[in-house]
Amino acid sequence: MTIERLACVASRSERARQGLDVLRSNYDLVPVEEAEVIIVLGGDGFMLNSLHRFQGRGLPIYGMNRGTIGFLMNEFKEETLIERINAARPQRLFPLQMTVTDSEGRVHEALAFNEVALVRYSQQTANLRIAIDGKVRMEKLMSDGVLVCTPAGSTAYNLSVHGPVIPIGADILGLTPISPFRPRRWRGALLPHSSVIEITNLDPEKRPLGASADSTEIKGAVHVLVCVHDAASVTVLFDHGHSLEERIINEQFSS
Amino acid sequence: MTIERLACVASRSERARQGLDVLRSNYDLVPVEEAEVIIVLGGDGFMLNSLHRFQGRGLPIYGMNRGTIGFLMNEFKEETLIERINAARPQRLFPLQMTVTDSEGRVHEALAFNEVALVRYSQQTANLRIAIDGKVRMEKLMSDGVLVCTPAGSTAYNLSVHGPVIPIGADILGLTPISPFRPRRWRGALLPHSSVIEITNLDPEKRPLGASADSTEIKGAVHVLVCVHDAASVTVLFDHGHSLEERIINEQFSS
Amino acid sequence: MTIERLACVASRSERARQGLDVLRSNYDLVPVEEAEVIIVLGGDGFMLNSLHRFQGRGLPIYGMNRGTIGFLMNEFKEETLIERINAARPQRLFPLQMTVTDSEGRVHEALAFNEVALVRYSQQTANLRIAIDGKVRMEKLMSDGVLVCTPAGSTAYNLSVHGPVIPIGADILGLTPISPFRPRRWRGALLPHSSVIEITNLDPEKRPLGASADSTEIKGAVHVLVCVHDAASVTVLFDHGHSLEERIINEQFSS
Amino acid sequence: MTIERLACVASRSERARQGLDVLRSNYDLVPVEEAEVIIVLGGDGFMLNSLHRFQGRGLPIYGMNRGTIGFLMNEFKEETLIERINAARPQRLFPLQMTVTDSEGRVHEALAFNEVALVRYSQQTANLRIAIDGKVRMEKLMSDGVLVCTPAGSTAYNLSVHGPVIPIGADILGLTPISPFRPRRWRGALLPHSSVIEITNLDPEKRPLGASADSTEIKGAVHVLVCVHDAASVTVLFDHGHSLEERIINEQFSS
Repeated sequence: MTIERLACVASRSERARQGLDVLRSNYDLVPVEEAEVIIVLGGDGFMLNSLHRFQGRGLPIYGMNRGTIGFLMNEFKEETLIERINAARPQRLFPLQMTVTDSEGRVHEALAFNEVALVRYSQQTANLRIAIDGKVRMEKLMSDGVLVCTPAGSTAYNLSVHGPVIPIGADILGLTPISPFRPRRWRGALLPHSSVIEITNLDPEKRPLGASADSTEIKGAVHVLVCVHDAASVTVLFDHGHSLEERIINEQFSS
Repeated sequence: MTIERLACVASRSERARQGLDVLRSNYDLVPVEEAEVIIVLGGDGFMLNSLHRFQGRGLPIYGMNRGTIGFLMNEFKEETLIERINAARPQRLFPLQMTVTDSEGRVHEALAFNEVALVRYSQQTANLRIAIDGKVRMEKLMSDGVLVCTPAGSTAYNLSVHGPVIPIGADILGLTPISPFRPRRWRGALLPHSSVIEITNLDPEKRPLGASADSTEIKGAVHVLVCVHDAASVTVLFDHGHSLEERIINEQFSS
Repeated sequence: MTIERLACVASRSERARQGLDVLRSNYDLVPVEEAEVIIVLGGDGFMLNSLHRFQGRGLPIYGMNRGTIGFLMNEFKEETLIERINAARPQRLFPLQMTVTDSEGRVHEALAFNEVALVRYSQQTANLRIAIDGKVRMEKLMSDGVLVCTPAGSTAYNLSVHGPVIPIGADILGLTPISPFRPRRWRGALLPHSSVIEITNLDPEKRPLGASADSTEIKGAVHVLVCVHDAASVTVLFDHGHSLEERIINEQFSS
Repeated sequence: MTIERLACVASRSERARQGLDVLRSNYDLVPVEEAEVIIVLGGDGFMLNSLHRFQGRGLPIYGMNRGTIGFLMNEFKEETLIERINAARPQRLFPLQMTVTDSEGRVHEALAFNEVALVRYSQQTANLRIAIDGKVRMEKLMSDGVLVCTPAGSTAYNLSVHGPVIPIGADILGLTPISPFRPRRWRGALLPHSSVIEITNLDPEKRPLGASADSTEIKGAVHVLVCVHDAASVTVLFDHGHSLEERIINEQFSS
């Protein structure tokens, strides 16, 4: 069964819009509602937004790079696009579900394909309690914040805050402190995929915290619950030899 | 179906031998050939040796600590031993298979429940090439050596050489350099459980290397192949609330 | 020549104000203008503010802890205060001078006894160029920011961002990246005390940066110059056996 | 006053011997006893040996690289050698003095320009106690060993074991654990130049230790005392723009 009906979305950048024009003049693009695959033109940021936007549709997503880094993207080529899409390797990405209770008692939910990050937004160091599966594992982390990442997200902000890169497909999550003051030199933990991670802001008035799921941020977070949302997975397609698995392994061996 | 027939082995330490005497006077111990479970008395080193010794028998192993650290051991208690063994939680441990070709062309095989470690034994820094699944990922690592660890072994020598602790049951392995000189600050990689890891000594005459699978060491290693040996797993029993999973998570949150 | 004329300042906390009342009822405190020493009651934050406030006066400063951590403070005791002050060990602290040019071309100057920190305040990773003594050493650091710390400040935010602790009195500064994305795993540098460090925001419009000298923050920083200001040193007094040198060594050996 | 009388020593490598032949045919080389400067041809290892060999003579040393890395060496050129030597920048290197008491009570002394390293040579993890200036700072370090390095040596083995690079000329030493098991994640310390560092093997029979000062190794070390030997300094000459200071700063900014 061949995929033939292509929808295409592009970021606002000139390179992405030019790419869209090229595809339009070569292929009969269809609206997303009629498509079998969604082509995304842009950089990793736009791709991440597109994963969120199209997450409920059950369509595979094929990115082509018109941005700077393109970790989640294939190379842009206008020729033989249908052949490449049909030959591409599918990779399911499982997002994290973040449930935030804010300082006024409101509850907010959001998905994160890369990471849920809790970060202070005042001058005051955050004081956080961390529980895993209902059991308190750290009574008080003093830090700029903490993040939970998926394997796909382990090469993003997690890498900056010195967390380990996790192979795509591995059944684990990364929990990594952001600029930890106490405990000194704490490096975080790798946790089972099934973990329920609860983070409580111990001093929400004096030490306010923002909780972000990818680019969605909730200010005044008091309590944050994070777990994998298996049912909300999205399938991303990668050209042969440029799979996400390959890129993540490469990332670990690069200097 | 209740486990009733207990065999017991003890290390040479006085505390282990005394423990064995206590058990003998309270239980009808049987030879290993007739046993349904093997009780191991000693420390982690003796436990590791026992895993190797009894690996082929298909019997679960229940350790009780008569040593110093006891990461793999339950608490020693003489009472209600059969009840505790029957209530204990099984944990399968999958060893690594190490295949070493030495400088005279001989091939050696050994299993490792904790880690396969390649370490220089001259004053000369080792020069190593690393390939994963047949693809060279690092042309030249200059270091004291490198190790591959299982999740269970990630809290042992891997922890000393700054590798991440891996949750038990996760489908990944750790590859961690030992005192890496170049590439500077290389931190190693987490790899899929199915990986085939090949390490080649680029200069075996001037820079000799020992390859160890747990405590078995082969000198003059030129080429080493490491992969998980799924069929050689051993089941270890842990008391409720003191599972290996629990201990490994604890290890990650301890300072 | 004995120090006898004591001035005293207290933070707004109740514990600090109570301490001030106790000292007032036991000693004839004088205004700062007439004092030979300034007693500071509060925590490390208030102490740091007091160093800035009294920096130009040439008076030694003796802190007593009425806060939580008290790294720069002596123990609070009301008795024998004059004897303790006269027996205390002086420690000169040399601040950093920060000179910031902002996006509208204005120049701002401030001193920092702990650290000068450049931190992004948008969602965008900062792109920074770093030059030492007029020579570009890093063309592009992609990170949340970077800091320069004194030895005294090396146990503060520098510790959180994984920088090394520097012994007090050592003739070096710490330069440490904050959550570095590229170059991967860059750990920063130790630099001679005499270094002139220039940090340039390569993309100030899209990626705005705040530059802080201790608690003074300048938004919209485009170019920041940092060097030690030897002439602006302040002398802080420490009780015997509780010197800052001792605390910093302790910090390095604590887990 | 111009340096004119050159002695030259070369390592056994063919490239070094060829270099020596070239110099011999262009310059009137003199014996070391009559020389004003000693030219060293080889790599860093031979240079380090030469520092030890000629340390007592008070002559400056000018290295030219005929090896692989050449951190301490200038570029090899046969022309204008006298001009380059006279224009070179002197750098004094202060060695460490190591005083080892072995398991039979014998005392051994040796100098180290790079590092004093204590390393286990059995399968057993070392248990070490560390005191600085007569005060015990760490009751028990469980590790493969520990090292003390000079600034010049901070880019050698210290770099491999994750210690910070120290600018040449800084008045500090590095103390860095080698594969530390407990305390977990201990990163070592930077210590004042004047420190007296004592390391005691807590279990010398079961856990034997070798103590090395550069390439001199003493087996069966029980107690090791390390301090800077200011009077034993050697002056090394570097071409303009290729000073050791420059190289060490470069090392910190390289990835």
